Amino acid sequence: MKNFLDYFKANHGRFMSEWMELLSFKSISADPAYRDDCVACAEWLAGHLRGLGFSAELWKTDTLPLLYGELPGNPNKPTVLFYGHYDVQPADPLELWDSPPFEPTIRGGRMYARGAEDNKGQVFYFLKALEALGAAGADLPTIKVMIEGEEESGSTAMHEGLSAWGSKLKADVLMVCDTGVIQPSVPTITMGLRGIAHFEVRVHGPKTDLHSGVYGGVVLNPLQALASIVASLHGEDGSVAVPGFYDCVREASPEDRRIANAAPIDTAAMSAMLGVDLAGGEQGRAPLERRGFRPTLEINGIGGGYQGKGNKTVIPSYGFAKISMRLVEGMDPEKTLALVASHIRGLAPKGTRVEILDEVAAGPALNLSVNSPVIQTAREALKRAFGCEPVYIWEGASIPIVAELAAASGTQPVMIGFGEEGDLIHAPNESFSLRQLEEGYRYVTAFLSLV
Amino acid sequence: MKNFLDYFKANHGRFMSEWMELLSFKSISADPAYRDDCVACAEWLAGHLRGLGFSAELWKTDTLPLLYGELPGNPNKPTVLFYGHYDVQPADPLELWDSPPFEPTIRGGRMYARGAEDNKGQVFYFLKALEALGAAGADLPTIKVMIEGEEESGSTAMHEGLSAWGSKLKADVLMVCDTGVIQPSVPTITMGLRGIAHFEVRVHGPKTDLHSGVYGGVVLNPLQALASIVASLHGEDGSVAVPGFYDCVREASPEDRRIANAAPIDTAAMSAMLGVDLAGGEQGRAPLERRGFRPTLEINGIGGGYQGKGNKTVIPSYGFAKISMRLVEGMDPEKTLALVASHIRGLAPKGTRVEILDEVAAGPALNLSVNSPVIQTAREALKRAFGCEPVYIWEGASIPIVAELAAASGTQPVMIGFGEEGDLIHAPNESFSLRQLEEGYRYVTAFLSLV
Repeated sequence: MKNFLDYFKANHGRFMSEWMELLSFKSISADPAYRDDCVACAEWLAGHLRGLGFSAELWKTDTLPLLYGELPGNPNKPTVLFYGHYDVQPADPLELWDSPPFEPTIRGGRMYARGAEDNKGQVFYFLKALEALGAAGADLPTIKVMIEGEEESGSTAMHEGLSAWGSKLKADVLMVCDTGVIQPSVPTITMGLRGIAHFEVRVHGPKTDLHSGVYGGVVLNPLQALASIVASLHGEDGSVAVPGFYDCVREASPEDRRIANAAPIDTAAMSAMLGVDLAGGEQGRAPLERRGFRPTLEINGIGGGYQGKGNKTVIPSYGFAKISMRLVEGMDPEKTLALVASHIRGLAPKGTRVEILDEVAAGPALNLSVNSPVIQTAREALKRAFGCEPVYIWEGASIPIVAELAAASGTQPVMIGFGEEGDLIHAPNESFSLRQLEEGYRYVTAFLSLV
Repeated sequence: MKNFLDYFKANHGRFMSEWMELLSFKSISADPAYRDDCVACAEWLAGHLRGLGFSAELWKTDTLPLLYGELPGNPNKPTVLFYGHYDVQPADPLELWDSPPFEPTIRGGRMYARGAEDNKGQVFYFLKALEALGAAGADLPTIKVMIEGEEESGSTAMHEGLSAWGSKLKADVLMVCDTGVIQPSVPTITMGLRGIAHFEVRVHGPKTDLHSGVYGGVVLNPLQALASIVASLHGEDGSVAVPGFYDCVREASPEDRRIANAAPIDTAAMSAMLGVDLAGGEQGRAPLERRGFRPTLEINGIGGGYQGKGNKTVIPSYGFAKISMRLVEGMDPEKTLALVASHIRGLAPKGTRVEILDEVAAGPALNLSVNSPVIQTAREALKRAFGCEPVYIWEGASIPIVAELAAASGTQPVMIGFGEEGDLIHAPNESFSLRQLEEGYRYVTAFLSLV
């Protein structure tokens, strides 16, 4: 480990200038105006991989190209597939940035730029760890690299191409450095992601908006019906009140629940930060358990009728609610969506019509086992790199493409990253500290040495 | 009556050109840019009243002037106070008008212009009836005229000044020609208006919008709480489920209910036109009874979280509902508002805070008695003018200023107007037929001769 840290220090200046080159590409995937910048960024990364001995190519797609690279290694070791993304979120509002988002600037030990963390920073420490391992003549496994360009805008090309690329991507371990730590400098393994499915429910009433004086008490107000339908989806105890919703849920093991609840998260401090009691979800279960192991049904948006200043006495023609569900192990996204949609369709009161729109079964949950060999290897690597036991978290969010990629490539994912709350990803003044960069580099060198 | 109709025909050309002059003023009260047009319109009307022998003046207010006129008459007859308004709704979207809204145009026996019906058309037939009565040397009562300029934008000056003007406005009968007929050419007396009060309820959750993956199941979603609160405001039977809500409701008499239900309204046709079953309000009561005699609580708008295309996985910081209540006889607007607001404040689940905003107790209900002498006079006048019995309706809407004005002036309101569904008031291509104008003129000459 000491040698790798020496290498990091010795090459610090070059590392910084290369990182800044990578961060200066305006690779905003959501805006077609930046298509050329996206391609240029992918080409820069391909060149960088070639410099490390990889064969590297851009795979053309109907949208943005994927970068694929391969470096043959010791065939007796498990093949590693690394997944990352070269695209970034849009940078607006530009006026809130202290330095321009695509002119990377180091201040107070932090690199400020769009993508400094998400995901270029975390991709970059992976590349620099590879470089250091190569320079040290380490006995490496075969390493495949897949860096996509549309993670921030739906991973269209990945979703469409994955089944066809299965054999090319075949590997044993899927390394994903797109997550964070529970607290600064506390090495953290993300053990689970929830799946996600979402839809919109629309409750239709009269053909047009009506005068609430002339028709109030005559016609059923679709917003009243909408509220009743939405309210009925949860029970008094905070559980989801759709019959069958929990039927396929695989309960987390007592061991996983114990580990999750032992994570050093101060729920009182969280409550103070959010400004509310942690009163969501199923009563009788601890907050971290609810987040990690239990499904949810959330109203992400609701609307209908008059929303301006003051009042307008209208019975609106319709109202809508946008609903997403977080899914856990055992739940099939398509089946859960069909179950809930069918239940809601049956709730329409007389005088209304219920429509379900925009159904998307984005992806299933991903749950790893603490005792699996690859997680134990990752744990050992983090212990060597940081001198302490890592923390295991089940964080509740979803990265649908990880579960899909793991299935297509036949791999076991290892999700370890060094993002922190203060990095402000997706926001103005995104940054990544040089400390975090070095921590990621430490982890990758240790993991690839051990695997 | 025949003489008056002859007078109408003989002066038809002049009547049309005068009416067009009145309609060409852009007296849009909601937009301060049209202030001068509003004042010019009031001055034109003042001049017109003076031409009929009235003393007439503009009362300055902090907002738009009121036109007040007086014509002394037979002191042994009940004094009549006429109420109308010279302001109109904005005319946009302009591109949907077939002829410009302030260039009055007659097509197919109809006058097309903003205000053609509401309320300049109905004010104009009143003025022309006065002219005809004067020309015939009729024995008229003392007539007071109050034409305001802010009916379409809150009647601010009226609300503020009424208590001070009480003695000046003292009268016996309040004539309001700002309502409609139940079917074309069926003379109709509006017997009741519901009162109205409104407010906004806002349910607050976390300080800021949160990621629904990371915090879903941890924090209670305020939209879920909002839906529960809103849904709980009605019972299964469609009644308002706020304890005490109906306590002061004065039940309509069996006679009034019989008359209301006998109105020639085809509820099946209404249902077909609206595209829904008439499934609102309290079960076990007929639609026209629910509209005329029962209070309501309606959700006029609801909002919160993400409302754009697709989905955004957010737990929003708050949600809101805009609620109005229609009130019936016996219900005090302030007290009802306080009762409901206090009830809703008590519904906040743990992890939320409920706020009530923008409370407005706009006005109480107004209910007239079929057997009162003034309504019997109106009935007799309509019988003479049209040769048939009038229809009595309780129409469910609210004109808060009428109840206030009646109270301040000590008058009994008589609400008879000749608006029809097809006049498209407040919409592009507003119009009023020459037939309707003549029907109104017939009614006013008959009524003022009899009163």
